[in-house]
Amino acid sequence: MQVHEVNLQGCVIDDPLLGQYQALVRDVVIPYQWAALNDQIPEAEPSHAIDNFRIAAGQKEGTFYGMVFQDSDVAKWLEAVAWSLVQQPDPGLEKTADEVIALIAAAQQADGYLNTWFTVKAPEQRWSNLAECHELYCAGHLIEAGVAWFGATGKRQLLEIVCKLADHIDQMFGPEPDQLQGYPGHPEIELALVRLYEVTQEQRYLQLARFFVEQRGAQPHYYDIESDRRGGSYFWPVHGPAWMIKDKAYSQAHLPLAQQNTATGHAVRFVYLLAGVAHLARLCGDEEKRQTCVRLWQNMVERQLYITGGIGAQSHGESFSTDYDLPNDTAYAESCASVGLMMFARRMIELEGESHYADVMEKALYNTVLGGMALDGKHYFYVNPLEVHPATLASNHIHDHVKPVRQRWFGCACCPPNIARLLTSLGHYIYTRRDDVVLVNLYVGNVTTLGDLRLHLHGNYPQQENIRIVIEAAPDAPRGIALRIPDWCSNATWTVNGDELSGEHIKGYVHLRRVWRAGDEISLHLPMAVRRVYGHPQLRHVAGKVAVQRGPLVYCLEQADNGPALHNLRLPPDSVFGQLAGEGALAGLVLLQAKGLKHARPSHTALYAYDTTPQTTPVSLIFIPWFAWANRGEGEMCVWVREH
Amino acid sequence: MQVHEVNLQGCVIDDPLLGQYQALVRDVVIPYQWAALNDQIPEAEPSHAIDNFRIAAGQKEGTFYGMVFQDSDVAKWLEAVAWSLVQQPDPGLEKTADEVIALIAAAQQADGYLNTWFTVKAPEQRWSNLAECHELYCAGHLIEAGVAWFGATGKRQLLEIVCKLADHIDQMFGPEPDQLQGYPGHPEIELALVRLYEVTQEQRYLQLARFFVEQRGAQPHYYDIESDRRGGSYFWPVHGPAWMIKDKAYSQAHLPLAQQNTATGHAVRFVYLLAGVAHLARLCGDEEKRQTCVRLWQNMVERQLYITGGIGAQSHGESFSTDYDLPNDTAYAESCASVGLMMFARRMIELEGESHYADVMEKALYNTVLGGMALDGKHYFYVNPLEVHPATLASNHIHDHVKPVRQRWFGCACCPPNIARLLTSLGHYIYTRRDDVVLVNLYVGNVTTLGDLRLHLHGNYPQQENIRIVIEAAPDAPRGIALRIPDWCSNATWTVNGDELSGEHIKGYVHLRRVWRAGDEISLHLPMAVRRVYGHPQLRHVAGKVAVQRGPLVYCLEQADNGPALHNLRLPPDSVFGQLAGEGALAGLVLLQAKGLKHARPSHTALYAYDTTPQTTPVSLIFIPWFAWANRGEGEMCVWVREH
Repeated sequence: MQVHEVNLQGCVIDDPLLGQYQALVRDVVIPYQWAALNDQIPEAEPSHAIDNFRIAAGQKEGTFYGMVFQDSDVAKWLEAVAWSLVQQPDPGLEKTADEVIALIAAAQQADGYLNTWFTVKAPEQRWSNLAECHELYCAGHLIEAGVAWFGATGKRQLLEIVCKLADHIDQMFGPEPDQLQGYPGHPEIELALVRLYEVTQEQRYLQLARFFVEQRGAQPHYYDIESDRRGGSYFWPVHGPAWMIKDKAYSQAHLPLAQQNTATGHAVRFVYLLAGVAHLARLCGDEEKRQTCVRLWQNMVERQLYITGGIGAQSHGESFSTDYDLPNDTAYAESCASVGLMMFARRMIELEGESHYADVMEKALYNTVLGGMALDGKHYFYVNPLEVHPATLASNHIHDHVKPVRQRWFGCACCPPNIARLLTSLGHYIYTRRDDVVLVNLYVGNVTTLGDLRLHLHGNYPQQENIRIVIEAAPDAPRGIALRIPDWCSNATWTVNGDELSGEHIKGYVHLRRVWRAGDEISLHLPMAVRRVYGHPQLRHVAGKVAVQRGPLVYCLEQADNGPALHNLRLPPDSVFGQLAGEGALAGLVLLQAKGLKHARPSHTALYAYDTTPQTTPVSLIFIPWFAWANRGEGEMCVWVREH
Repeated sequence: MQVHEVNLQGCVIDDPLLGQYQALVRDVVIPYQWAALNDQIPEAEPSHAIDNFRIAAGQKEGTFYGMVFQDSDVAKWLEAVAWSLVQQPDPGLEKTADEVIALIAAAQQADGYLNTWFTVKAPEQRWSNLAECHELYCAGHLIEAGVAWFGATGKRQLLEIVCKLADHIDQMFGPEPDQLQGYPGHPEIELALVRLYEVTQEQRYLQLARFFVEQRGAQPHYYDIESDRRGGSYFWPVHGPAWMIKDKAYSQAHLPLAQQNTATGHAVRFVYLLAGVAHLARLCGDEEKRQTCVRLWQNMVERQLYITGGIGAQSHGESFSTDYDLPNDTAYAESCASVGLMMFARRMIELEGESHYADVMEKALYNTVLGGMALDGKHYFYVNPLEVHPATLASNHIHDHVKPVRQRWFGCACCPPNIARLLTSLGHYIYTRRDDVVLVNLYVGNVTTLGDLRLHLHGNYPQQENIRIVIEAAPDAPRGIALRIPDWCSNATWTVNGDELSGEHIKGYVHLRRVWRAGDEISLHLPMAVRRVYGHPQLRHVAGKVAVQRGPLVYCLEQADNGPALHNLRLPPDSVFGQLAGEGALAGLVLLQAKGLKHARPSHTALYAYDTTPQTTPVSLIFIPWFAWANRGEGEMCVWVREH
């Protein structure tokens, strides 16, 4: 079975919602982030990322500033620029990016090594602390950028830089006695090397990715070996001396992957790692790796996933908690983790051709990923809680990581460029080409060439229920177009040129197979009844509560519409939902309205009262798409509402 | 108005419940803690507290080990021993205590200074870091021990030691240019000095207490002044460099007390401080201080008090959060804080003669304070949550401070001896003598001489509803006996010698005033209907939930009786309560039984399900007194239950 990656050069997004986000990325995010990377935004935390490269290249005096992984912000920005230029050429921007690439080339060492922290601060310590110091992680992001820049522009310079870097890494790491048997504390290079292999067909890159994956968790443990070599020194004392080295589950290195059964540790590391493993499993036909991916995906999705597509229940270590522990108001649910979840999901679709992976991918995209960025493109959430009570955030330190409104930039600015590169490369997620079948995973409006097919997907998803796919070009041979039937839709209908056509139902997709002609039209109707969603009986943080969903969008209550003390609101089981058109910041969105009850004990000064009868006031509840919360100032928000 | 402290030499507790706790303190806790202070308990965290005194006294080689305030554990143990010897003489124990006192004397420096940490580790740094280093706090506990030892045994040695210490402090601190204008980071010495004044009638001690209280929060800030003198060094880097010095609200030193309006910062510090202020307010007739106490008490009790009498909603800084922020499963609610709350409450009763202070005192005693110690006397809770889900404690770090079962000892062992000294000095809390009126605050069985009255209070409170007070001796003049009518009881009745007698209702007490004769008997009936308790509408963590109370006891559900997944249980509004006799570890306690519902969605592997109908199973719910939770192994527990 052959999977062909969608060529983004042949993909134009014209979706009302996501097209607008792409325009935002192009017009606002990329310039804004460029300014941020150059420390030109006075009120934001400094980045220094470009200056770090200048200093490493010897073009500027000074010292490194920022996180040990600061380079990756530049790489992710370049990736976003690459995919954005495909959507809309911009010679000025391309020139800027070329200059950045030249700067990166200048910062690369003669042997191929490339990392500004080590080059500037401690060249003699290269590759001595993989557990903590993110060299391979940064290399991975640079490789992804190189692959993207080549794919978007056809220019080879950055690709050559990263091949030289990958060659250097391939020399340093491997099973031979004169090589290091290590692997990254923060996975990323695995998935990047596999992508580099796909572009270059260089088998060594595939082998190196396998080496990193298969070496993981081997005993004696490499983190300890390198720690001993360093005399026990460590880099991050955040949770005590050497905690990142000791807590091996934090980086999914406590056991070989084949022996791991639960999503654990730092959520971003987990999904980045598994994205690479899933890709490897497919390319190598490796059944053990496939089973590992299926098993760990299952634990994550069936026991540790927020309804919003967020993962990582706690701030400590930005990590998973344990089965069924998903608190709402102390959630971490990092934006980057949901970007990584989409990357993992995409590769699982490629591997398995099953729609439930796309269901989760869609959930993450339309809720946490979109929610991570403000509708102005200039403010971001790093943390995505499902309930916020601003008045107590500053007083109770269990909420220290939670912000009630999006921030302009972060000292650790991983999320904004990650969202940007995801939104500019949506074509990779919309379609999956497996042999001669095109799986339609997401109903984002677009025109895309998929080999010898060209499809134009029309619609205004997920605001509207109808999707049309017009075949603009097709070969004179049968091809499969497979429509994903979303898990939230129980009564989808479709026609081809007006005729009902049942198609073949395979793994959650309706496969329509025929010789297509230009002008053929598939029409898909996905009724978006408002659904009440309930948690698994073990999910104690939502017991007795209901969430509201329409299409893939999870809704929430905000103080802006419903007043304060949201905890006193109830959505009775028999309340019927009406629709409202959003206005102002929420223009273009479908809001929901339902009869609710405000349920409160009579006002009393005593903190506790005996045997009082509650007062119940009828109220009109307004629900808005959760991804759009906190765009109208600071206020309370909650996803889960009491029913009784 | 004259308040006479109850002389514990004339007070014998014969209460079934608390008498048993006193026996436990005598027979188990005091010997156990003595062993702990001497590091003779292999599996417990070491204390080294006695050895610290030996080393400071030059009787042993070695270095200090333990907290900077380790001395206070010895002081609190001595205080518990003192009050315990009053209940039951024990020549062996008294000899041991006399030896400890001799050791303390030996550790005292020629100028009166007494603190083993500084004497052993850094004598030149004495009094240089009041904000962080607890010298005045430890002095306060030693003073309290000296007052107790004198009151219990009539022996003056420890009293003389602490007077010498207080004299030294009085020389060092004060308004004169050659004195230090500082005050303790951790209050305690204020309340201790006032008690020392009461025993010695030495005005200087009262003045010094006032100085410490009135100096608090003055600008320029003393913490900064002394920090500058030290060149900016700091002691506790727990939450970042110098956080304890910078976060002045943490020790209630951000403003002069007269300008403070909310209970804030470290909860134990807050109540210790206010106990001293309330005592001062009464002795000095200081209206501003009285208003400060009333105002801050009100904020604490009306906005920041757990239903269990716990205070301090968060682990960070063991501190208050803000108004109406009382999460159940991340609560801190330190045992010591509730002991301190009783101390503050007792002084407010003495100051104001109002029963609502005693209501809170009773709540703290019968719930958090008793709950802090296991029924075996050997295990303790430092933290007292209202909801525990053991399976997730280890995985989600927001619960790092929570233990699902009581622990044998603590590295910071403030709570066990604090509970012990409270339980042995109950007479101070049961009665308040104001002029010729005896306020009966607590219905603990006892025989006590109160000036020229001797009362014998019979009952088995709070298991049973009837209390008899027999007058065993009385003068030939009218005396008032004032019965507290608890806030949880709406239909109390009482008779004197069988006759109904309305008495005078003053501030929540029924004042019965007459010439009493030996043999007179007051009978009080406090019907203990099971009460449903509801939170204030702003208390979002208990919205839609109910707590169950009988008498002063708050009840809870435990997994031992109700199975796992307590969050799926409901107590419908119309369920009637029956009583059950506790068995095994719960023998002697009244358990409650009610019809409940187990309310869960059908079992499904998906984490979220659409539009499912819940399954409801009738179940029999068993509630046990919350203070007795976790005496039958590890399991889930919750106080607040859904009603609908």
